[in-house]
Amino acid sequence: MTISIAHLAPPGTYAEQAAMIYRNCLTQVTDEQALLCPHSTIPQTLRAVSEGETSLAVVPVENSIEGSVSVTFDTLWQLDNLRIQLALVMPITHTLISCASNLETIQTVYSHPQALAQCQKWLENFLPQAQQIPTNSTTEALKLLRDDITAAVISSQRAAQLNYLPILTTGINDYPGNCTRFWVVSQNHQPNAYKALRNSPSHTSIAFTVPANVPGALVKPLQVFAHLGINLSKIESRPTKRSLGEYLFFIDLEADAASPLMNSALTELANYTEVMKLFGSYDVMPITNISI
Amino acid sequence: MTISIAHLAPPGTYAEQAAMIYRNCLTQVTDEQALLCPHSTIPQTLRAVSEGETSLAVVPVENSIEGSVSVTFDTLWQLDNLRIQLALVMPITHTLISCASNLETIQTVYSHPQALAQCQKWLENFLPQAQQIPTNSTTEALKLLRDDITAAVISSQRAAQLNYLPILTTGINDYPGNCTRFWVVSQNHQPNAYKALRNSPSHTSIAFTVPANVPGALVKPLQVFAHLGINLSKIESRPTKRSLGEYLFFIDLEADAASPLMNSALTELANYTEVMKLFGSYDVMPITNISI
Repeated sequence: MTISIAHLAPPGTYAEQAAMIYRNCLTQVTDEQALLCPHSTIPQTLRAVSEGETSLAVVPVENSIEGSVSVTFDTLWQLDNLRIQLALVMPITHTLISCASNLETIQTVYSHPQALAQCQKWLENFLPQAQQIPTNSTTEALKLLRDDITAAVISSQRAAQLNYLPILTTGINDYPGNCTRFWVVSQNHQPNAYKALRNSPSHTSIAFTVPANVPGALVKPLQVFAHLGINLSKIESRPTKRSLGEYLFFIDLEADAASPLMNSALTELANYTEVMKLFGSYDVMPITNISI
Repeated sequence: MTISIAHLAPPGTYAEQAAMIYRNCLTQVTDEQALLCPHSTIPQTLRAVSEGETSLAVVPVENSIEGSVSVTFDTLWQLDNLRIQLALVMPITHTLISCASNLETIQTVYSHPQALAQCQKWLENFLPQAQQIPTNSTTEALKLLRDDITAAVISSQRAAQLNYLPILTTGINDYPGNCTRFWVVSQNHQPNAYKALRNSPSHTSIAFTVPANVPGALVKPLQVFAHLGINLSKIESRPTKRSLGEYLFFIDLEADAASPLMNSALTELANYTEVMKLFGSYDVMPITNISI
């Protein structure tokens, strides 16, 4: 059996790391049978699965510092046939990569806006002179480093190693315990074929709209879960893109949709929501060893 | 009297437009008495007011398509002495600026990630060949256009005019009715000196944390408002930056904090929240004519 896993390009990104770690967890396939397929944006990564081009996608959902990756939620809502199989929680250690011999030489720092934001205080303290330039991924600007010793990139240690580039310093995140949650996503009719070693589902993700301009319209759906003692681990509002002030709500619940309790909750929920989508129940796997 | 208004640099950004429109609404000062003070990031813009360097700041809060501007919420929570004076809702019309003679010539499109996202379908249809490059603001890359006829920038019509650059096409937003909400912010001890022509406050913004891992912990605060018939116009969760799964909640309510009803709601709310911050009550002003 061969399977393919879509992830955010280019090699060396945290999303690729997450995809490789997930591949290592697969019990029924060898590394050679599991192909990694880089895509240049998150919507393209998810569309690859939705259109059957790849078996799975690994996409970032949320960082403990910067919050939700909005485009992942928006694309999941738009594409009607996806299902979350597993959540991976990966620790993030940002690394300063540069051919400069010391920090004083550095005039520009390139990285993804989220990575720059996660090292903001460190940058203000140690590189106050450097201009910060956003890029599409943490690795995109690595190619500039060899020709410019005044430039630096914030990325992963793995990205430095892959590109044979020197690490100036590592662990430059402003907050310890910085980690990112990823979802492994398949088509929803998919049999559970690509099973990683895992426990039974502990979380369920849903999204819904509620009637507009009704006081308490959001309270009613939340009450359903509170009354049944189901913990809500995350709530996220996203614009419906129709008019300012109209939202979709994405909710993560600490329960399996197949349980009788959740079953009654979801049935009752239908009374208070306009459109409701279930993105699946899944286990959350913390990653403790990121050497791959 | 002279007042100063901090906003996101450089000239030509939508934030500067909003700041200029606000200046026109001020009844007690002339244009010459109201100085616009550009700052290079949103945290710097808000810190300028917090530290007394400027009287006011105008910052983007939310776009009808792309959702919340997270950094505005995070900075407001961190800086303890700010108060929202007014909300402005401004229609956004994205414009393609380039020295190219036709669309086929264009190989790269520069803009702020939110503006690129708001024109994604248009770009896929009309510029499928062009690479999209994120920048710190919608105007940052305008300086490249004169030397490179294969480049284009998505920004405002005003930015094109300010820089004497040609407009290739305008209204390239994927969704009609695209608009952005801004907040005008002052220090919280500020007397209401910089009064624009406006109605009495219709909205109140608050933020709070709730006890972690308690089922229904978020429902109780929301129930307080639902029981009193106070409509919640927005809810936004942001990470506390301590550990994944711990959130702050930012809530907009359709009521004045000075009203007796809101007064009892806020008193009751204290029973169910850990830390609670009130960012002020204010009127929402729709901008219909953006010529300035």
